[in-house]
Amino acid sequence: MNRLHRYLPASVWLKDYTRSDMQTDMMASLIVTIMLIPQSLAYAMLAGLPPAVGLYASILPLVAYALFGSSRTLAVGPVAVVSMMTGTAALQFAAPNTAEYLTVVILLAAISGLFLLLLGLFKLGFLANLLSHPVISGFISASAILIALGQVKHILGIKASGHNLVEMLETMWHNLSSTNITTVVIGVGAIIALQLLRKYFKAILITFGLSNQHAQLASKAGPVLVVVMATLVVALLQLDQAGVNVVGDVPSGFPPLALPNMDFHLAVELLPAAILISIVGFVESVSVAQSFAAKRRQSIDPNQELVGLGAANLSSAFSGGFPVTGGFSRSVVSFDAGAQTPMTGVFTAILILLTLSFLTGAFYYLPKAVLAATIIVAVVQLIDLKGFVEVWRYSKQDASALIATFLVVLLVGVEAGIITGVSLSLLLFLWHASHPHIAVVGRVAGTEHFRNVERFQVETNKEVLTVRIDESLFFANARVLEDRITQLIANNKDVKEVVLMCTAVNMVDASALESLEMICERLHSTGIRLHLSEVKGPVMDRLKGSSLISHLSGNIYLTQNQAFEELCQKEG
Amino acid sequence: MNRLHRYLPASVWLKDYTRSDMQTDMMASLIVTIMLIPQSLAYAMLAGLPPAVGLYASILPLVAYALFGSSRTLAVGPVAVVSMMTGTAALQFAAPNTAEYLTVVILLAAISGLFLLLLGLFKLGFLANLLSHPVISGFISASAILIALGQVKHILGIKASGHNLVEMLETMWHNLSSTNITTVVIGVGAIIALQLLRKYFKAILITFGLSNQHAQLASKAGPVLVVVMATLVVALLQLDQAGVNVVGDVPSGFPPLALPNMDFHLAVELLPAAILISIVGFVESVSVAQSFAAKRRQSIDPNQELVGLGAANLSSAFSGGFPVTGGFSRSVVSFDAGAQTPMTGVFTAILILLTLSFLTGAFYYLPKAVLAATIIVAVVQLIDLKGFVEVWRYSKQDASALIATFLVVLLVGVEAGIITGVSLSLLLFLWHASHPHIAVVGRVAGTEHFRNVERFQVETNKEVLTVRIDESLFFANARVLEDRITQLIANNKDVKEVVLMCTAVNMVDASALESLEMICERLHSTGIRLHLSEVKGPVMDRLKGSSLISHLSGNIYLTQNQAFEELCQKEG
Repeated sequence: MNRLHRYLPASVWLKDYTRSDMQTDMMASLIVTIMLIPQSLAYAMLAGLPPAVGLYASILPLVAYALFGSSRTLAVGPVAVVSMMTGTAALQFAAPNTAEYLTVVILLAAISGLFLLLLGLFKLGFLANLLSHPVISGFISASAILIALGQVKHILGIKASGHNLVEMLETMWHNLSSTNITTVVIGVGAIIALQLLRKYFKAILITFGLSNQHAQLASKAGPVLVVVMATLVVALLQLDQAGVNVVGDVPSGFPPLALPNMDFHLAVELLPAAILISIVGFVESVSVAQSFAAKRRQSIDPNQELVGLGAANLSSAFSGGFPVTGGFSRSVVSFDAGAQTPMTGVFTAILILLTLSFLTGAFYYLPKAVLAATIIVAVVQLIDLKGFVEVWRYSKQDASALIATFLVVLLVGVEAGIITGVSLSLLLFLWHASHPHIAVVGRVAGTEHFRNVERFQVETNKEVLTVRIDESLFFANARVLEDRITQLIANNKDVKEVVLMCTAVNMVDASALESLEMICERLHSTGIRLHLSEVKGPVMDRLKGSSLISHLSGNIYLTQNQAFEELCQKEG
Repeated sequence: MNRLHRYLPASVWLKDYTRSDMQTDMMASLIVTIMLIPQSLAYAMLAGLPPAVGLYASILPLVAYALFGSSRTLAVGPVAVVSMMTGTAALQFAAPNTAEYLTVVILLAAISGLFLLLLGLFKLGFLANLLSHPVISGFISASAILIALGQVKHILGIKASGHNLVEMLETMWHNLSSTNITTVVIGVGAIIALQLLRKYFKAILITFGLSNQHAQLASKAGPVLVVVMATLVVALLQLDQAGVNVVGDVPSGFPPLALPNMDFHLAVELLPAAILISIVGFVESVSVAQSFAAKRRQSIDPNQELVGLGAANLSSAFSGGFPVTGGFSRSVVSFDAGAQTPMTGVFTAILILLTLSFLTGAFYYLPKAVLAATIIVAVVQLIDLKGFVEVWRYSKQDASALIATFLVVLLVGVEAGIITGVSLSLLLFLWHASHPHIAVVGRVAGTEHFRNVERFQVETNKEVLTVRIDESLFFANARVLEDRITQLIANNKDVKEVVLMCTAVNMVDASALESLEMICERLHSTGIRLHLSEVKGPVMDRLKGSSLISHLSGNIYLTQNQAFEELCQKEG
């Protein structure tokens, strides 16, 4: 039973699922659906896919996540950034709106699903930590710009494509002449309408007597309102005849269930892209899930989240969909709508299925320009300038990683950008770790506190040198300690005892151990003894058996004060 | 003047260079030369080059290092591991003993010289830290095996080649039939002789009345003795007629000074190999230099070492040599021989030059099998089984990095092996850092000490939760803290105050800062306050301006005890 709980979180909340839970969940699912439909259509378009695929990706994945996910409120489905990454990745292997293109996308979903599942089963969630916040922020901002720009073509009613800024602008520039005025009017109109609704809709609804909370919820339906209006206008004025691109026929009925055709060679080529999509999707999803879990004093298990998202993507692949993940905006809606359990997701899936079965006709006259408008309005909010300023103020190092990622994503491409960002932040961290703060300390008179001799007025003894290193000791800084100690004893000819104060040493790896032995031996060869003080429990457990302790020329002291007292007496 | 000191360390020791220094240095250089000559010839052979090149690489580089290096005792020149790396790298671009091959090797020296120089000028020495001790140890052991095996062909007098174990054994197996018995006798005889001399020569010399120290030194000439004897035997019995491969004609006179012809395309292809050669050479060299510096209470500057080695390799390239670095065995000799200053290197260079001018004839009958024997005997000592056992005992993680490097070097190749090792140790470190030791702590009754509630009998307060994290906070573990805190407050419903005890936090990067703000905000949304205690000076300096401090729902306490006292009172 316990195992079942671990691998199938649904088994926990399902067994005490009440009728009232059901009612609130159903209510919430209705609102989520209204919001999800235009999003699904739009993000499918963003990934270069027929709109229907967006709906396919919003059915089984929701059920799969409901069963295996560990968050109670996360709403999964197509998401802007992941959809764009899918699009850019697929573009390298096939032309949009072709059968091959669809195969590639489905395969992408399958592979990233598998990858996420494996990460989860092997508890490798920590790999996602490789994406530091600055890298993510730079990546998201740049992606948002690329996405918005990518949609401008729909607003202008022209053709354009490309993996990065330059390519996009080029192709757009070439086709600018074929701009369709009617489309522009509709598109720009939609953008303005959406912005106004975002700002004032809630207030208006309140003046119409809705409670604050209901207004809050209803205002989320703003995009739907715009979509419906635009569709009606186009339908009535037959603007599709006037060159306004519309969604057109959407094949109705159940999504095509089928195993993605596993072209191994292609799969291997898609792997890097799939991995990036998975990790980015996971990071985005897990942070959303966490913030909601905290609100209700629930907790989530990242590795279980991997399993949940993995299952969601696999089922998406099996139902002809594309990569999905947890989305922020729709999770907010579902949370505000009072969703109690993941059952909300199941109900939403059913509603989407019904839509696919009976309402697809309604999308025929829906102008692509309006979908583009909803995307643009949504992603522009992702451009995080404030965040950049804060990072810049706090740390130039982190800021440089952010800028590098931003620029490379914008000018070269998403994958190159993320790889640059990750390797840069790794190098910067190693640089930091390999330049640890090493202080010679002395005792603050009348206390048992030891502080940096350069910052404080302290007691010292010219024959007893105490060094405090403020960093874990591992390969990145093992050699640095050797350098510093060699220097210090070179500059202090009288030193006979060296004490290494280990208050801040959280770990000593084999490289550092060897360095310490080396240091001890070298000091010994010049008649100096090496002592350790205030070594932490876990670290000491490790060191006990090691040859360092057996060969240590000096002693190990529980407190720095003991060490100082005893050694000063000895040296007199 | 100070600048001069920084960029030209020679200017420091040269200005108080005495006559007596000169005498001891000259004496030392003589002994070093006797040892260096056979080594140079052998290692040139190991790199697949004509013996003379080994001597070329032992002239200008020594002078260049004497001027720019920061170690007083390091003896640079051809070294086994680097020579092998050079050989395996060059083999991929040209056939041994061809003009192209020589060009490639010279270019390798030039590029790695340039690379080292740049690292030094930009103070990027820390990059060498990427090579953890286990990775180096695994790499060296595997290389030693490959080198020894590579020399067996000379002992058997057959042809063989290959980048890894499998290829070598294959080619050897094919040509085994053409084994030359006379050569085998000479080769095996040499190996036995060398081993015996290593063991007993010193003792014998002492019985002949030499002082311990002189015997120690003279015993280092053992290989030379073997080389001379073997050469005489081959010469007298004209064994070269009997199919024994000999060194043959060595072009005498000054090395050919010329700029390496910079084929840019080739240079780019050689870059990765050159970088690895440089870094491995640097790491080996700097650790040797350090141990000697410590012995005399001198210190070395790693970045200056980079400049020194860079200059050495560039000058090697300009004089038709191949990559060089600081060697251990010959540094020991030079140190034991009482070398006072790098001037020893200059004198050695002169002696090698004289040898090239007048003694090359003496090498004609020197059998390659004997050179191979000296290499084998030398490198077999590099196979570090004891080291492996120790690492294995100390940490399975580090051991796995060692094993991986060892196997991949042996079975795939040097470069693949090092890359595997480095990335693996990075991942393992990140894994460790992203699983930090996080403890809920309470106060040990009657003290101001706070310890882990699971390990100690401590006072706690159900409304005040104190968490101690034993790790710097950065992107690799930022999210982990979020998880744990979310869990903890989910499991302790009464908690109203959370204190984060930062004794072991040496750094907080932008990612962690954002996580902390997130945590603070989430706790706030459930009416819990977040406090910090015992934040370190440098960390606090950073945090001061940040939005975390301005938005912090709780307080910052100097000591954990203050925090506990005050909060317990408040909560009653």
